[in-house]
Amino acid sequence: MSSSEINKNEVDIVIGALNADLTQFLNSWRPFFTGFHLIIVKDPELKEDLNIPEGFDVDIYSKPDMEKVVGASNATMFSGYSCRYFGYLVSKKKYIVSIDDDCVPAKDPKGLLVDAVSQHVSNLENPATPLFFNTLYDPYCEGADFVRGYPFSLRSGVPCAASCGLWLNLADLDAPTQALKTEQRNTSYVDAVMTVPLKAMLPVSGINIAFNRELVGPALVPALRIAGEGKVRWETLEDVWCGMCLKHISDHLGYGVKTGLPYVWRNERGDAVESLRKKWEGMKLMEKSVPFFDSLKLPESARTVEDCVVELAKAVKEQLGSDDPAFTQAADAMVKWVQLWKSVNSSG
Amino acid sequence: MSSSEINKNEVDIVIGALNADLTQFLNSWRPFFTGFHLIIVKDPELKEDLNIPEGFDVDIYSKPDMEKVVGASNATMFSGYSCRYFGYLVSKKKYIVSIDDDCVPAKDPKGLLVDAVSQHVSNLENPATPLFFNTLYDPYCEGADFVRGYPFSLRSGVPCAASCGLWLNLADLDAPTQALKTEQRNTSYVDAVMTVPLKAMLPVSGINIAFNRELVGPALVPALRIAGEGKVRWETLEDVWCGMCLKHISDHLGYGVKTGLPYVWRNERGDAVESLRKKWEGMKLMEKSVPFFDSLKLPESARTVEDCVVELAKAVKEQLGSDDPAFTQAADAMVKWVQLWKSVNSSG
Repeated sequence: MSSSEINKNEVDIVIGALNADLTQFLNSWRPFFTGFHLIIVKDPELKEDLNIPEGFDVDIYSKPDMEKVVGASNATMFSGYSCRYFGYLVSKKKYIVSIDDDCVPAKDPKGLLVDAVSQHVSNLENPATPLFFNTLYDPYCEGADFVRGYPFSLRSGVPCAASCGLWLNLADLDAPTQALKTEQRNTSYVDAVMTVPLKAMLPVSGINIAFNRELVGPALVPALRIAGEGKVRWETLEDVWCGMCLKHISDHLGYGVKTGLPYVWRNERGDAVESLRKKWEGMKLMEKSVPFFDSLKLPESARTVEDCVVELAKAVKEQLGSDDPAFTQAADAMVKWVQLWKSVNSSG
Repeated sequence: MSSSEINKNEVDIVIGALNADLTQFLNSWRPFFTGFHLIIVKDPELKEDLNIPEGFDVDIYSKPDMEKVVGASNATMFSGYSCRYFGYLVSKKKYIVSIDDDCVPAKDPKGLLVDAVSQHVSNLENPATPLFFNTLYDPYCEGADFVRGYPFSLRSGVPCAASCGLWLNLADLDAPTQALKTEQRNTSYVDAVMTVPLKAMLPVSGINIAFNRELVGPALVPALRIAGEGKVRWETLEDVWCGMCLKHISDHLGYGVKTGLPYVWRNERGDAVESLRKKWEGMKLMEKSVPFFDSLKLPESARTVEDCVVELAKAVKEQLGSDDPAFTQAADAMVKWVQLWKSVNSSG
């Protein structure tokens, strides 16, 4: 799917600005962002003014905007990497594409720059196939197909809710791995898109992601924050938790989640060894989360994404609340998020 | 993993000979088969003498050998593509690698011939990760790792039961697809190995496969035959059914199944349009099989592969037997297979 085939009015590109100077970032993406509407959300803790080059169709949101929309007491939920969720909340578009501001376009094996926006939208517009695994990867790609034995009744697939892209150079590792393997770089460009099967859990990364906001918007929820969470990805868990919620809700409602292309090129940011000095709480929280999601069964009565998030929050509080206060806070944030979503999206 | 690191005494390469002249096939594989023990099983319906070039360590089995081991009445279960299962039965090795005799080594994107044997054994020797999806593919590959959010308690993985390789040039399509898209060729070399998640169903292909015989040998069962099944892959379903059994039993016993590398290059064989004139029964049988496997729950008491196959056969007979006589025959063949396996493998 080429850029010219995309209805650009259906897409918002949401960028969380953790750095004030977005010049290099936006110039590198200019060939692929031009013509799209950008929502740039400034981390409320960032003091400096943003530096944004000319020539983009962009709306910028900062702390006062957050306070106006959600109230001063709720604005803290959008600090750090979570600032992008404010963009998800105020967008009116069908599709959201979101990329971290330390990433630039990757090159494919032929040396061509990867148009991550078009690839994400293509992933979202084509059906997903979570009910049966196709060994030849995404059967809707040019030149691909369903393999022998793939049930014909499942070949029309289901709507695709989200598209998870990958990373060249600095892969998305956790703090301990990053600190132990400071020299490791991802050089492997795997030329494939696939649907993650029904019931399989995956750690979604917010670095390079897109989703169908009309289908699953409220499931992208800023909820789980690690105490002492920093400004480097390997210290966060907010997107991983959000991804577990998103995947479970997509499974429940009959949607699919894809992973693979597009790649972005991740530049260095932060000191991994410094992160290791902190205790990485993410590890402990994931060990509790996995059996929770594994056994979770949302009630049949939950037929909207909003219902699902509220039911999920209830289960989190009941089953994980006593394990760690971070889970109770996450559950409360999820309920609050649904209220905000309903209020912002009904008033529009 | 290079060829020199493999303990060649642990591997049998099993080839089902549907063609009498294996000269070109074996010569093309000579760089990778040399030093390994080969089991060549001649299709009992093939009349001509086999033509096998010199220089291989090979044991050949034909119809009289089958009749001696399993009795004349049982030998029919090894006709056509199913002849290779006789090789699985008489092997004494830990690992089996099996490749169709119309395949030659593929080239990777750098133009190097792919050592399919070493790649399969490497897949089998490294753990599988069916309990959580790693977006960076097989974390045990050189330069790869577990992504942020991957639970640490699951990073040691589980034993790998089977390795499903793929195909360049002629992909493994079913009869209708092959006939409709006679010109379509697979040119996409996806440089990745991954574990198929727990509970996900996939259509395993017997064209290019390897498995740990000690772990799951009896689960590789020649059972489901389509009436009027021919000598071209797109008319068969035997391996797809076998793969559904294998995957379900692996899930039940805590093993993993991998897919992806290695590729082989598949040459043309047969007339797809001719196949289309026949009614392809595979389609109908798969539509019945999928909900069956989806809802199947083997009893906790089934703790060996043999137990699992027998329990599975019982469920097939009860739940699918009235739908199609092919299922009743499959169930009977599965019970018989376990008896044969026990008898052949206890006497050795």
